[in-house]
Amino acid sequence: MMKGKFITFEGTEGSGKTSVIKEVKKHYELKGYAVMVTREPGGISISEKIRDILLNKENTEMDPRTEALLFAAARRQHLVEKIKPALAKGMIVLCDRFVDSSLVYQGYARNIGIDKVYDINYFAIEDALPDLTIFVDVRPEVGLKRVFQTPNREVNRLDLENMEFHKLIYSGYLELAKKYDRIKKVNGEQNIEEVAKEAINLIDKIL
Amino acid sequence: MMKGKFITFEGTEGSGKTSVIKEVKKHYELKGYAVMVTREPGGISISEKIRDILLNKENTEMDPRTEALLFAAARRQHLVEKIKPALAKGMIVLCDRFVDSSLVYQGYARNIGIDKVYDINYFAIEDALPDLTIFVDVRPEVGLKRVFQTPNREVNRLDLENMEFHKLIYSGYLELAKKYDRIKKVNGEQNIEEVAKEAINLIDKIL
Repeated sequence: MMKGKFITFEGTEGSGKTSVIKEVKKHYELKGYAVMVTREPGGISISEKIRDILLNKENTEMDPRTEALLFAAARRQHLVEKIKPALAKGMIVLCDRFVDSSLVYQGYARNIGIDKVYDINYFAIEDALPDLTIFVDVRPEVGLKRVFQTPNREVNRLDLENMEFHKLIYSGYLELAKKYDRIKKVNGEQNIEEVAKEAINLIDKIL
Repeated sequence: MMKGKFITFEGTEGSGKTSVIKEVKKHYELKGYAVMVTREPGGISISEKIRDILLNKENTEMDPRTEALLFAAARRQHLVEKIKPALAKGMIVLCDRFVDSSLVYQGYARNIGIDKVYDINYFAIEDALPDLTIFVDVRPEVGLKRVFQTPNREVNRLDLENMEFHKLIYSGYLELAKKYDRIKKVNGEQNIEEVAKEAINLIDKIL
């Protein structure tokens, strides 16, 4: 059986990771690789239904641990139905957010603890941890400026709360990058072509 | 803050645990205790929605680990919204199936492993493990005879497969009862009044 490469991309809002993924995909397809881009819930029926529960506004009383378990369940099904079959065909799989988003959002920002959230996600993922995780590093003030650059948009109270949260998420990612060897940083404050080039250099090393 | 008692009931199909719970409830209410009977998903909106995904016939491709994570998520929310508030009021909570059903059905019968399924459930439950778990012990052949006693019902191929599964579940419960001190057996092959009496004797010891 062939074995592809599983590469995940992480970053705060406004980090531009989705654009980086597009460039990386183009690059490897031109080189003749089979590339699949995906993100949770990935069109997987069970995962979409779980995501509906997570996003439902009526469910405001959801406990953070319930939330973490639901994200892990949706991740498991997406992995089994979509990512693993692509890897088995030898494809390069580029996934926009994966386990580290849960570690940062539920484990770090919601205070459950990174290690505890890691454990339930390890149950979900088993041997399919990413071969490489690219953290698109953009400082909070730069990322938020990008998000706020929508024309005619004034900064409001909610945005200021968002700014605190944004900074918290950013610190969480820095902590993860220190903790796990598989996470490599790229400088996301450059032109998209330069960011993609850094990412491609990292990916070339594991191909 | 007062602290109630959290008592769960487990058993195979046809074990009669639901009837035992009714008798136990009646007994303690007559003695003046506040008693709540519940079972997952317990009318909790989020847990009901998770249960819908678990029971949906379209979702036949569900991975066993996805299933285990979804049960743990539904359990968490039921615990936080319904069981913990009742315990905080000092009530006796009688719950029809809880964590041990997952350990037996997903961990043992579906081969994920009891300890692995325990870990994700421990994440869901934290400090709220049952004070006492009553396993209503009915041998598989006796339990199935009860299930099959519906008038004019003939045993078919599916029932025979069910019998193998039923035996597997029963062995799983026996293994759990050996493993965890909080699980106590009652002889479920007696009259309902006698079974309830055994259960009440066990509960009296922890009140």
